[in-house]
Amino acid sequence: MNSSKEMMNSILILLLCVLLSFTSHASSITRQNFCKADLNRPNTPSGYHCLPSDTVTAADFKYSFNGKPGIPLPSKTLAFPATVRQLPILNGLGISVSLGEIEEGGFVPVHDHDADEIVMVLKGQLDVGILTPLKSYCNTLIPGDNMVVPKGLLHYLINSGPGKAVFLAPFSNPNPVFRYLYEELFASDVPSRILSQVSFLDELQVRKNKARFNGTG
Amino acid sequence: MNSSKEMMNSILILLLCVLLSFTSHASSITRQNFCKADLNRPNTPSGYHCLPSDTVTAADFKYSFNGKPGIPLPSKTLAFPATVRQLPILNGLGISVSLGEIEEGGFVPVHDHDADEIVMVLKGQLDVGILTPLKSYCNTLIPGDNMVVPKGLLHYLINSGPGKAVFLAPFSNPNPVFRYLYEELFASDVPSRILSQVSFLDELQVRKNKARFNGTG
Amino acid sequence: MNSSKEMMNSILILLLCVLLSFTSHASSITRQNFCKADLNRPNTPSGYHCLPSDTVTAADFKYSFNGKPGIPLPSKTLAFPATVRQLPILNGLGISVSLGEIEEGGFVPVHDHDADEIVMVLKGQLDVGILTPLKSYCNTLIPGDNMVVPKGLLHYLINSGPGKAVFLAPFSNPNPVFRYLYEELFASDVPSRILSQVSFLDELQVRKNKARFNGTG
Amino acid sequence: MNSSKEMMNSILILLLCVLLSFTSHASSITRQNFCKADLNRPNTPSGYHCLPSDTVTAADFKYSFNGKPGIPLPSKTLAFPATVRQLPILNGLGISVSLGEIEEGGFVPVHDHDADEIVMVLKGQLDVGILTPLKSYCNTLIPGDNMVVPKGLLHYLINSGPGKAVFLAPFSNPNPVFRYLYEELFASDVPSRILSQVSFLDELQVRKNKARFNGTG
Amino acid sequence: MNSSKEMMNSILILLLCVLLSFTSHASSITRQNFCKADLNRPNTPSGYHCLPSDTVTAADFKYSFNGKPGIPLPSKTLAFPATVRQLPILNGLGISVSLGEIEEGGFVPVHDHDADEIVMVLKGQLDVGILTPLKSYCNTLIPGDNMVVPKGLLHYLINSGPGKAVFLAPFSNPNPVFRYLYEELFASDVPSRILSQVSFLDELQVRKNKARFNGTG
Amino acid sequence: MNSSKEMMNSILILLLCVLLSFTSHASSITRQNFCKADLNRPNTPSGYHCLPSDTVTAADFKYSFNGKPGIPLPSKTLAFPATVRQLPILNGLGISVSLGEIEEGGFVPVHDHDADEIVMVLKGQLDVGILTPLKSYCNTLIPGDNMVVPKGLLHYLINSGPGKAVFLAPFSNPNPVFRYLYEELFASDVPSRILSQVSFLDELQVRKNKARFNGTG
Repeated sequence: MNSSKEMMNSILILLLCVLLSFTSHASSITRQNFCKADLNRPNTPSGYHCLPSDTVTAADFKYSFNGKPGIPLPSKTLAFPATVRQLPILNGLGISVSLGEIEEGGFVPVHDHDADEIVMVLKGQLDVGILTPLKSYCNTLIPGDNMVVPKGLLHYLINSGPGKAVFLAPFSNPNPVFRYLYEELFASDVPSRILSQVSFLDELQVRKNKARFNGTG
Repeated sequence: MNSSKEMMNSILILLLCVLLSFTSHASSITRQNFCKADLNRPNTPSGYHCLPSDTVTAADFKYSFNGKPGIPLPSKTLAFPATVRQLPILNGLGISVSLGEIEEGGFVPVHDHDADEIVMVLKGQLDVGILTPLKSYCNTLIPGDNMVVPKGLLHYLINSGPGKAVFLAPFSNPNPVFRYLYEELFASDVPSRILSQVSFLDELQVRKNKARFNGTG
Repeated sequence: MNSSKEMMNSILILLLCVLLSFTSHASSITRQNFCKADLNRPNTPSGYHCLPSDTVTAADFKYSFNGKPGIPLPSKTLAFPATVRQLPILNGLGISVSLGEIEEGGFVPVHDHDADEIVMVLKGQLDVGILTPLKSYCNTLIPGDNMVVPKGLLHYLINSGPGKAVFLAPFSNPNPVFRYLYEELFASDVPSRILSQVSFLDELQVRKNKARFNGTG
Repeated sequence: MNSSKEMMNSILILLLCVLLSFTSHASSITRQNFCKADLNRPNTPSGYHCLPSDTVTAADFKYSFNGKPGIPLPSKTLAFPATVRQLPILNGLGISVSLGEIEEGGFVPVHDHDADEIVMVLKGQLDVGILTPLKSYCNTLIPGDNMVVPKGLLHYLINSGPGKAVFLAPFSNPNPVFRYLYEELFASDVPSRILSQVSFLDELQVRKNKARFNGTG
Repeated sequence: MNSSKEMMNSILILLLCVLLSFTSHASSITRQNFCKADLNRPNTPSGYHCLPSDTVTAADFKYSFNGKPGIPLPSKTLAFPATVRQLPILNGLGISVSLGEIEEGGFVPVHDHDADEIVMVLKGQLDVGILTPLKSYCNTLIPGDNMVVPKGLLHYLINSGPGKAVFLAPFSNPNPVFRYLYEELFASDVPSRILSQVSFLDELQVRKNKARFNGTG
Repeated sequence: MNSSKEMMNSILILLLCVLLSFTSHASSITRQNFCKADLNRPNTPSGYHCLPSDTVTAADFKYSFNGKPGIPLPSKTLAFPATVRQLPILNGLGISVSLGEIEEGGFVPVHDHDADEIVMVLKGQLDVGILTPLKSYCNTLIPGDNMVVPKGLLHYLINSGPGKAVFLAPFSNPNPVFRYLYEELFASDVPSRILSQVSFLDELQVRKNKARFNGTG
């Protein structure tokens, strides 16, 4: 029975050679396993337009943090994002990642983002604190430790050890928006008197911080 | 042709009377147009368990702000929420609403929530400001005016007129979480020195506000 | 220890002034907290294309019902929609709202929409009824009362009191489609004999209503 | 090089036999490729609770229309649903299906559902009409023909040929809710005078149809 | 009371005739019940751009398998897809369908797709098997039988009876991507030695199948 | 004007002390920023039931790979998952992560999962290949390099360097299901002859691998 099956398979080989040219052509038209962003066209609520999938190569799936300059963040921190802007193949997916380096004594100030995050420490020691109304959740992390930061919750990271701290931070969003509290409060143009009132901060404090962060108003 | 159709319809009436008892019984089992929350059972990521739909009455769809005490919020504000906790029929839907009353001189301090909002002024005058990194978007609203507040963005409301201001605020979420900045920062247990560092606020300011809002640490 | 921290902060101020210009420029590229619709470009299944976020101003977040003409609806009703068409900043969000005014004796005829709704009465008295298979859910509402109307369920509103009734109606969709039963049945081109058959309405009734609502067929 | 690889593979075989007992045990705990509904527990907004996946057998994935009695629908129609109620393995998936049989002269009256549908004719001839506000979309279908009915749009099916018509109708929802217009309007308890008003139907017509479909009010 | 209502209705008729021209025009602008794909513009993560809805006709909702050539698949199988590429009105919906014909002795080889599926046998006999880690779920289907195949699970179909087998297969996705295992493994350019290693297949087997399916490497 | 504001603020302090006890109590009832899984109750399609949020502590947000035994995978690989099973606070979120260690000469065999992934190399050298129909996308990664693997695509990882390779792999799903091809094909109970047919593998190869991986049939 096996040999007859082998024979049938042999016949199939011939048949398939003919069929596959059709198959390949016909089905490759509709195939879309990924959607590389065309960053030169306007965005939509679901992400960027897709570039033609046959122009995508292996290199499009790869991104290296090595040799990148890093974006300086206060304080003593460099961020190396790998989001849809740097890695357009992430468009339409549910993930992105950033590498962070915090010098000794540095920290990432209070912020949140529209994405769940896991802080994964690679080097040094980090104190990560989540601020929720009335209660905070703070942990000290060493290499091998991780901390979950749910979407929308304010949190901070402090290099609490000697030497540089390095961490990876994946996000549940290909294009997360980072909202630093000091930028929202003090680097903007909301009038100091108003801001003082609605934040319960002294107006002197507000003016001082606005000066520090180039705010106006 | 019409009259023969009438005749056919007459026959159908008889037929349907028989059939409908089957139909009604059979199909009513699977019908679920809504899902009234069973608040006594644990929540799930998609919401609460559904109570049996045949126990739902017209009253379950109605909620009145009238005669409710209101939840006092700083400052000089009463909130009357109509979310899934007060109105369990909202469970699994994409909407809820709150009524707000702000006395003269009062305001709703800086906060955000995991839901899009439209502030709709019914009475008085409101200044509503959205704080985004580096830029703020502020408008003065009178009755008939509306302001959109996208999910996750910090914002405040100030009664900028004489007399009481009243507004309705629908949300794109049946169970929105409100995160008041002053609570996250000052009513929690995060140590003052840490908080001062990561928020760029003076430690004196932090301690003062922690005392004001019953914070510890 | 505090003073040394103050000193460190002073140094940070200088550092930050330098860094922030980088930060601001670098991060502002990727920031998208909202997506104002470009109504002149074609729609997508997730909404309209986004206009550049740096062209968005505070005015884009505001919409006033005041001074708008209102869209006349049968019967004796004016609708003032504030959906993505009128308020393009709603694009991609999960919310919109309409104001409704029903004259004495007027009503909003049976309809449904692809969005959850909360009817919130501001003035007068409304009877709101939800029609589900076999059962209806009807309530009488006065100012301060609300009624939940889940997505896809047929419902009507009747001004059941003296004088004008006014209500606000938020929706869980930035671009809800309203499907008025009388339009679907009688203002369209479906042949009267067919419609009579599949709706169990007398053909005379169908023809009469088609005449009333400019239907053909 | 191949032979050394073969040798390595041989060693791996031994290694894997040891490892797999760990692997299998450890990973089988977390595996969940499907979620068979526990219909005896309350529903949630995302569906029913999952029965333990190790109790699922091949039979759970199969459902036969053969030998089922069918649910009689007006008019001269039998429906054979295969939704989560009949086929609990559909729980949490995005699909279900129904078989329909319409006798000569029969039809499925105007209805909609919270799911996209494709009507696929297997036997006979069907006229399928979609009613949207102001415009209808009607096609005549024979075996091999399909018609798309988007979620929420009113539509009807008429057996327009001689003999029985048979069709399959997949839905984009494991638990679609069917809303028959005649049931919503006439088989419910909404008062005739009210219904007449808000549907623009003559009260006589309403009373006649309520009598026909066991409505009250 | 009825007659006064009739009179009111008569007045309403006149009023409505005036109003409806406004209504129709005004509301038709925002109406979008469906989104016919513009296949000539680039895709987005949520689907294709919408063509103007007023260019959509009844024919756009219909698709016939009749007279279509079918796409040959190994082995002895013809596929007749009705996805967004053939039926652009499916754009943005949650459904599509394919017809399959398998000659006697033929089969659809192991594959998966990013969509839930229900295999519905119309003619002949099919063995359908789902392969999950460690366990398989296999059923023999005859006309009237259905089998659920959850998204992402490998499965195969074998014509296990005499004569041709015909089946319909709806999917929970308007644009499903089919991933045939033999194509992923053997029709691609992954080097044979590597593939042999990571698939636990003998290199000879890999080379033989690459030759069969026009693979390289 | 400032001093009068200070005075007002002083009065507010007193007022707030009174109000906050109400506020805290009232609003804490409805707050849910996260949903820690109750793994002892049955799952739902949206995840596990939530444990009461007031029982959640800082420790619930932390997970360490250190000191964990690791799950052995073929070949020469240890996996350290941090998904909802190990880290219940991930329930309902859109993220999880695993650490992988591959000894020299080892690899992770061909598999896919229902989640997008980013492979981030920490140590050593990895070749990561994605197999799509007809085309493969392969990259060699060193520490600092990342590779995106979209949901549902078959892929493998090979330690292509000297010494151990270590990588982190975040997923866009709190509870990803891993489907190893060798387990689906050879560790299950699907009959060898059938499997041979539908996979285009020689029956001898199938039997050999079934023996290797404890398959039956």
